[in-house]
Amino acid sequence: MFKKISIIGCGLIGSSILRAAQKKKVSKLIYVYDKSKDASSFLKDKKLSENVTNDIPSAVKDSELIIIASPLSSYKEVFLLIKDHLKEGTIITDTGSVKREANKIVQGFNLKNVSWIPSHPIAGTEESGPGSGFAELFQNRWCIISPDEDTKKDDIEKVKKFWELLGSKTKIMNPIEHDHILSLTSHLPHAVAYNIVRSVVKNEDNLKDDVIKYSAGGLRDFTRIAASNPIMWRDIFIDNSENILKVLDSFSENLEEMKKAIREKNSDKLIQIFSSTKNIRKEIIKAGQDTDKPDFGRKKS
Amino acid sequence: MFKKISIIGCGLIGSSILRAAQKKKVSKLIYVYDKSKDASSFLKDKKLSENVTNDIPSAVKDSELIIIASPLSSYKEVFLLIKDHLKEGTIITDTGSVKREANKIVQGFNLKNVSWIPSHPIAGTEESGPGSGFAELFQNRWCIISPDEDTKKDDIEKVKKFWELLGSKTKIMNPIEHDHILSLTSHLPHAVAYNIVRSVVKNEDNLKDDVIKYSAGGLRDFTRIAASNPIMWRDIFIDNSENILKVLDSFSENLEEMKKAIREKNSDKLIQIFSSTKNIRKEIIKAGQDTDKPDFGRKKS
Repeated sequence: MFKKISIIGCGLIGSSILRAAQKKKVSKLIYVYDKSKDASSFLKDKKLSENVTNDIPSAVKDSELIIIASPLSSYKEVFLLIKDHLKEGTIITDTGSVKREANKIVQGFNLKNVSWIPSHPIAGTEESGPGSGFAELFQNRWCIISPDEDTKKDDIEKVKKFWELLGSKTKIMNPIEHDHILSLTSHLPHAVAYNIVRSVVKNEDNLKDDVIKYSAGGLRDFTRIAASNPIMWRDIFIDNSENILKVLDSFSENLEEMKKAIREKNSDKLIQIFSSTKNIRKEIIKAGQDTDKPDFGRKKS
Repeated sequence: MFKKISIIGCGLIGSSILRAAQKKKVSKLIYVYDKSKDASSFLKDKKLSENVTNDIPSAVKDSELIIIASPLSSYKEVFLLIKDHLKEGTIITDTGSVKREANKIVQGFNLKNVSWIPSHPIAGTEESGPGSGFAELFQNRWCIISPDEDTKKDDIEKVKKFWELLGSKTKIMNPIEHDHILSLTSHLPHAVAYNIVRSVVKNEDNLKDDVIKYSAGGLRDFTRIAASNPIMWRDIFIDNSENILKVLDSFSENLEEMKKAIREKNSDKLIQIFSSTKNIRKEIIKAGQDTDKPDFGRKKS
C-alpha cells in the first residue's frame, strides 16, 4: 500500500503499529524512531525492525505516511524536528487521545503541501514500552479519524485504509465531538480510578496487606486502569482540561447525592440509583463492545 | 461431611453453593429454599436439586449447617421463620457483605444451642439469579469467616472446611475489621462505578450511541461493576454506611486535589498523582489476586 511509512515513538501503541504493519505488509519500508535509547536498543535487539534510527530526518525522509505515536506533550518538539524534511504530499497522522490541542499545535506550524489527518485508535492496555506491544491490539477496535473539512478525500481514504489494514473499524468525527465523548468514556473513568486507588493506598498503610488480599471485590479492576502510563495521562488531563473538569463536576454532584442517600438511609433513593445503570451495560454488550460472559469473578484466572 | 445442609436464598451465590456442594459431595442431603417462586421453579425445571421446598421449616429441619444467601435486609424475616425449627447444635452461616449489622440482628434473637458463624465469600459476578450461578465461583477466592470469641472451635473448623471444599481459601477476621477493609476494596469501587455510569447516562442522551460505541477506553469496565444486584448494594450501603461515608469523603478530597491540579495545569502534581498508584497494582499481581496479562484491550473478546 505504501512505499515508506514512519513511526515516531515506539511504546505500547507505536510498537503495536510496527508489529501489525509488518504482519499485514502495509508498507515496503517501515522506519522507526524513538527518542529513548532503551526503546531503540530493544527494537534492534529483538529484531523487531531493520530500520530503527536515532536520526529523525532520515526516519521521515521520503515517507508517504508518518504516524506520531509519542506523548501529546512531545508534538511541538517532533514537528520542529521533522518540518523541514517532509516529502511533498506526505500524510501525517497521530494516535493521541486529545484532538483539539494537537490540532492547534500542528496548525501553528502552517505546513505547506502536507496532509495532517489526526487519528485516535481506542485501544491500549495498562502497560507501556515497546515490549508491551502486540500486532492484534487494534483488531476490532474503533479508530476515530478527525480530518479538517478541507482535507483531500484521497488522503483521508488512505488513513482509513491504513487503520483498517491493522484490523480497526474507523469513524470520522470532528475534534470537538471527539474530545467531549472521550472525556466521558475514557478520561472520567481514568480520573476516578486513580483517585480510588489513591484513597485506599494513602490512608491505609497498616491495612495494605489485607487490602491487596481482598481486592477481588472491585478494587482490582481499578488498579488495572490506574496503572496506565503517567505521562500520557498528564498530557490528556492538561490538553482536555475543560471537558474533563465539566464531567468531573457532574460526577461530584452525583456522588454527593448518593452520599446524602446513604447518610439518610434512604432505601428507595438507593435502589433508584443502583437500578439506573443496568441498561447501559446491556446496550454495550449489544453493541459488541464487551461480552456478556461474567468476568467479575475471573473464572479462568 | 454433613448429613443435611440447607441453603436459604438461591440467587447467584446460593445457587453456586448448591452446584459446588453437589459436585464436591459436601452433604448427603442439600435442601434449598427461595422466597421467589420463579427461582424455585427454575431450580426444579433445571433439575438442579431434588429438594427444593417453599416451606422454610422443612428446609432447615434436622439440618447441621444452614447457609443464608439471601439479601442482608431479609435476615430478620428469615430468622423469624426458622428460629423455632432448628436442630440443637446446628451451625448457621451466611454470605453477606457486611458483618456488624448482621451480627446485631442475629444476636437480637438470642438463639440457644446454635452456632452463628458469619462468613463472606469474596466472589461474585455482575449477574444475579439462580441461572447465573456456577460451581467454580468460589475456586481460589477468599472467604472471610467472622466468629465470636466464644464460638466452639469445632464449629469454626466445620465452616472453614465447608468453604475449603467449595474451593475457597479461608481467613478468620473480626467483623469490625471486615467491614472496614471491604468498604475500601469493594464498597468504594462500587459506589464510584455507579456514579460514573450515572454521570454519563444522565447528561448525554444525545450522545448515547457514541458513548456506547467508544466505551472500550475505560467506561466499559465500570458498567460491568455497576450492573450488579441493586437490592444487595442498597443493603450494603445502609448496613455499612459509617465506613462507606468515611472512605467516600476521603475519595472526594483526593478528587478535589486532582481537579485543582487540572485547573492549574500543574504538570508535576499530575505526574505525582498518576505515578502514586502503580505499585499497588504490582503487589496485587504478586499476591495472586490478578494476572499481569494485559486485559484492558481485551485481546480475546
